[in-house]
Parts: sequence; structure tokens; C-alpha cells
Amino acid sequence: MDEEILRQRVEAARVGHLATTRPDGRPHVVPCCFVVVGDTLYSAVDAKPKSTLALQRLRNLAANPSASLVVDHYDEDWTQLWWIRLDGAARMLEAGPERAAAIDALTAKYAQYVDAPPPGAVVALDVETRRAWP
Amino acid sequence: MDEEILRQRVEAARVGHLATTRPDGRPHVVPCCFVVVGDTLYSAVDAKPKSTLALQRLRNLAANPSASLVVDHYDEDWTQLWWIRLDGAARMLEAGPERAAAIDALTAKYAQYVDAPPPGAVVALDVETRRAWP
Repeated sequence: MDEEILRQRVEAARVGHLATTRPDGRPHVVPCCFVVVGDTLYSAVDAKPKSTLALQRLRNLAANPSASLVVDHYDEDWTQLWWIRLDGAARMLEAGPERAAAIDALTAKYAQYVDAPPPGAVVALDVETRRAWP
Repeated sequence: MDEEILRQRVEAARVGHLATTRPDGRPHVVPCCFVVVGDTLYSAVDAKPKSTLALQRLRNLAANPSASLVVDHYDEDWTQLWWIRLDGAARMLEAGPERAAAIDALTAKYAQYVDAPPPGAVVALDVETRRAWP
């Protein structure tokens, strides 16, 4: 698969699925919005209706920073299926210039954030490996 | 959220995202087709183009049977977003009547399997907990 196509597919994806590992070793997965800046993915705990559940991913990453995010396309024509998975280590950004730049990038990608900027922590996933299928 | 709506959303979903934990503790996530039978989800390693990558989920589950599958709806109107996550323990079905019944159920849900029945193992995820958002 062409490198440029893979890059475009990841950048264009409106939603990804982020897996983390709970402190007891069980896996955890949530859909999330994200943006790519260089080799880092940024995802915010945003102003969508929140509950304490929304923070499980942050508790997991505090105990084990490994994270895996997959973007994919589902189609009833199974010859059109694809996914791209990005694995790496996550950092939590509570404040500072990198968080501010991430919020700017998220807002440029998602107009929904313009009127409701993400108030909470930003997860920065530094991508170490990428796998694509098929 | 109404119990019947949650059940219908899970049953109707054409794709889910399955998270497992690698033997080294890192998380792993792949999109997958699945079917619900009672309180168990079944997913096959099917006849879509395969590679050795397709088996990572099976290696993970052999070492740690905990699994998490999320179904969700993305919409640019963020008031319409939802997800439902199902967590439990997975069993690997290599042969036998439960595997055969799972293949029948998968084929009834996905016409794509009629001409290409899944040749490999079936993952049976016995659901222990369910979380819904919002």
C-alpha cells in the first residue's frame, strides 16, 4: 500500500478506536476523535456529554502508557475493507504549549470544537509502529 | 437508555472493534464482524484476505482471555453519538457444535459468508459487563 494513501487515510478519518490496558490487564476500547500532527496523534476528553466512564482511558494510560488506535473502513463489499493500526506510547497533556497546539489542530479538523473547546486533558500518542491491512 | 434499544443496536451493528491484551501487556485492537447469540458474541477469522497479522488476536486471547468489543455510531452531529461496550472472557472454538452454530448465525447475518464460510477459529466472547454512552 502506498505510503501517501496510508497517511491520507489516517489523517482523513473522523473517528478512531483507541485501545488501552486496564491496571488489571484487561483491555479497554473507546471510539474517539483525533488529529495527526507529525508522528503524534492527539485526542481530547472533550465537551461531548461526559461521565466518569470517559476517564477510564486516562487511568489506564497513567498505569500503562501503551496505546493502540485503529482507523478503518467498513463496506458491505468486503473487497473494500481496510484498516490501519498505530501503536505507541501515550503522554497526558494537562496544560502548556503542546496541549494548546493540539487543541488548535483538533479544532481545525473538527468544527464541532469551535464553540465547545475540549476542557480536559489531551492524550498525545507518539506512534512507534504502524500496521495496515490488507 | 432503553434495554431493548441497546440490544437492537448491538445486534444490528455490522462491525465492532475488538480489543485484547498482548502477552507483554500492550493493547491490540482490530475491527471485526460478529453476531450475538444470547449473551455471547461470536467472531470468525474469516475468508477475507488473511495474513499472519490476523492471528495476533488469537495469540493474545490464548494468553489472556479478557476481551472488550465496542459498537458505536459516528455522526457529524455530535448529539447523535453513542457507543456500547461489551466486556468478558473469550473462548476459542476450533471445531464442534457451538462453532457450527456460530458459523450458521454469522452466515445468517452476513450474506458475504454464504460463498466463503469462515475456515478458521471462532472467538466466543461471553459477555460479563456492558457499558453504554451517553
